[in-house]
Amino acid sequence: MNDNLVAERPTFVTHLECSLTGERYEADRLHGLSRAGRPLLVRYDLAAAGAALSRDALTGRETDLWRWRELLPVRHTANVVSLGEVETPLIPIPRAGGGRVLVKDEGRLPTGSFKARGLVMAVAMARELGVTRIAMPTNGNAGAALAAYATRAGIETIVLCPDDTPEVNVREIAMQGARVWRVNGLIDDCGAIVGQGAAEGRWFDFSTLKEPYRIEGKKTMGLELAAQLGWRLPKAIFYPTGGGTGLIGMWKAFDELEKLGWIGAERPRMYAVQAAGCAPIVRAFEAGEEHAARWEDAATVAAGIRVPRAVGDFLILRAVRESGGKALVVGDPAILRAVDDCARQDGLLLCPEGGATLAAYRQALRDGEVDEDEEVVLFNCATGLKYPMPEAPNALDRHKPIDFDAL
Amino acid sequence: MNDNLVAERPTFVTHLECSLTGERYEADRLHGLSRAGRPLLVRYDLAAAGAALSRDALTGRETDLWRWRELLPVRHTANVVSLGEVETPLIPIPRAGGGRVLVKDEGRLPTGSFKARGLVMAVAMARELGVTRIAMPTNGNAGAALAAYATRAGIETIVLCPDDTPEVNVREIAMQGARVWRVNGLIDDCGAIVGQGAAEGRWFDFSTLKEPYRIEGKKTMGLELAAQLGWRLPKAIFYPTGGGTGLIGMWKAFDELEKLGWIGAERPRMYAVQAAGCAPIVRAFEAGEEHAARWEDAATVAAGIRVPRAVGDFLILRAVRESGGKALVVGDPAILRAVDDCARQDGLLLCPEGGATLAAYRQALRDGEVDEDEEVVLFNCATGLKYPMPEAPNALDRHKPIDFDAL
Repeated sequence: MNDNLVAERPTFVTHLECSLTGERYEADRLHGLSRAGRPLLVRYDLAAAGAALSRDALTGRETDLWRWRELLPVRHTANVVSLGEVETPLIPIPRAGGGRVLVKDEGRLPTGSFKARGLVMAVAMARELGVTRIAMPTNGNAGAALAAYATRAGIETIVLCPDDTPEVNVREIAMQGARVWRVNGLIDDCGAIVGQGAAEGRWFDFSTLKEPYRIEGKKTMGLELAAQLGWRLPKAIFYPTGGGTGLIGMWKAFDELEKLGWIGAERPRMYAVQAAGCAPIVRAFEAGEEHAARWEDAATVAAGIRVPRAVGDFLILRAVRESGGKALVVGDPAILRAVDDCARQDGLLLCPEGGATLAAYRQALRDGEVDEDEEVVLFNCATGLKYPMPEAPNALDRHKPIDFDAL
Repeated sequence: MNDNLVAERPTFVTHLECSLTGERYEADRLHGLSRAGRPLLVRYDLAAAGAALSRDALTGRETDLWRWRELLPVRHTANVVSLGEVETPLIPIPRAGGGRVLVKDEGRLPTGSFKARGLVMAVAMARELGVTRIAMPTNGNAGAALAAYATRAGIETIVLCPDDTPEVNVREIAMQGARVWRVNGLIDDCGAIVGQGAAEGRWFDFSTLKEPYRIEGKKTMGLELAAQLGWRLPKAIFYPTGGGTGLIGMWKAFDELEKLGWIGAERPRMYAVQAAGCAPIVRAFEAGEEHAARWEDAATVAAGIRVPRAVGDFLILRAVRESGGKALVVGDPAILRAVDDCARQDGLLLCPEGGATLAAYRQALRDGEVDEDEEVVLFNCATGLKYPMPEAPNALDRHKPIDFDAL
């Protein structure tokens, strides 16, 4: 059927390295953070990969996430796990106020969010490395993706989430075979419990960037974008930033694509978008700092980016600065207005985090930060269907005469 | 970007004909039902299409729904409307009890259901034919798809739905720019009001099969399936059957593919799946009748197939019989169990209508109606995320000592 899932294809992985110190770690071993307490990055022999694989060969494959096998860490085809990771469409929203605004609609992935990209890879690697029990803190969508893939791979899963996590997320996590617990705290409070259990050897810790492979899955957003646009990149990318794995992953992907000789040196300006009620990266960006202090009393309607402290903070800030982009903040009212406008005007229902990127884009347009004629990609990280929508109370009694003029 | 949306490509449409009498109607005109009160079918010059277009040429295109332009009715590229109609994945569910069971996951389409296929085509044709106001009865998902595409195309829309339509559907319809009304009745009661307004010239009637183009959109399920399986078809298809447009459309697609010389004469056995609380097609099938009488007091957890009377009843029954398949009935408890099992065992969350096809498959397996080693496709017609899920009440107090053994 889909060759990407069943054909034997080599990975060109060589090793891992600490994102802070560059210290080298062996591939094909179970790793958490580096000895310096920082995320590990997976490295490939891109010269060899480029010799073995051409852009044309890739174009001939099915377009799902697993077409990038050579640039992904999974070594044995038998460990590939899949629930149909389709290439997500780029949808123009002509009424967004600018010129060429494309929404990358990540809600089309399994479990309805971009979290599937990271978790499908992390679970496949967990299977490859013999992990049998995983725990993870989540604001919702990541837990849903983990539950689905771990169930698929026959791995036991414990998920902890803040007690105000959207109901649909908690339920889908449970439905898909994980054990899920609501915790009276935020995602980093959940993460502390997961870390404690991991230290006691009870499970493997799947927190954002605490295992090295979610970022490899997320980087496919960048690979896919290049392929979809005919091996060029947009002028700017607006990315809703919580843990920031996707932004870091795309930045890594662009670097790998250039080393493969498949794109040039030009990069999009990366805009990390956060909510006014939880904007640690924006604060650090504006203060010119390398790391971001924890944001106290975090609160926003965009639960997915309510991450008070990101372990990859310095990687996010570095990518944003290198790209010539910015960290931008938008308020909840602007987020909700953007969601409403996009649905009502362009027929596309965004999630609040996707709405945040549209709100940030509009603001950047007003501020002259982006030009009207620049091609821009906004990431809608999950299906809008998972989120509360306003009531629609109109009713009609068919047993009475119908006032057609009022319809 | 996606050539399918912007390249000039000819349609090979020649005319329309009445599905009952064969009477011929002109293409490129606005049509409702035929003079005999039956659905119109769109006909193509397949010899010319086959000469102009090869399977290989198709394989080189982007895989979305609009790659089939030559076999679709839209004449002018400018009328193509799109929200990213991706090719939906075929996902194996190895723990379903049989051999090679594939779920075609239609929840990945815009607005989260297969209704997008029919409505994107009907709205594009409405635009092509100058329609400015549309009304439609819906059980939910079709209204959501209509709202999104009509908004996109700048067409005014009125949607009527039963008052117990899932809340998420009613809200998304309103969000996406349609005017939506709850009616104290079933879908055919809503349809009667739409019909009355249409008769008064207030709007164009978009009811299932009352305009000729939804079926052309739905037939892409059959085209896609053939392309995905390497130009062969599965042994059996289980299809959740309300109005039956998709089943009729797929049957039409297979016929067109054979005339193009792209597949042989072999066909899948088509199983029309209905719920015990609303099974007019099953009743007619078993009685050997050509038409299906209205089902009174229709009720099922699978709202999408709660259609008491289908205007295309004879076309559904004809396709099922010609294929050597059957109309099958499953109860709500079996439907809910199938949804639960598939999520818990294979990590795939089906909608209730998709669950109905799995329940029917299991039953057919037990009854010897299908063999264990037969390749079978089940249609999951919408994302499971739109439907109620059981509560997951576990909570954990992080201010107290954690009992890790209990997690």
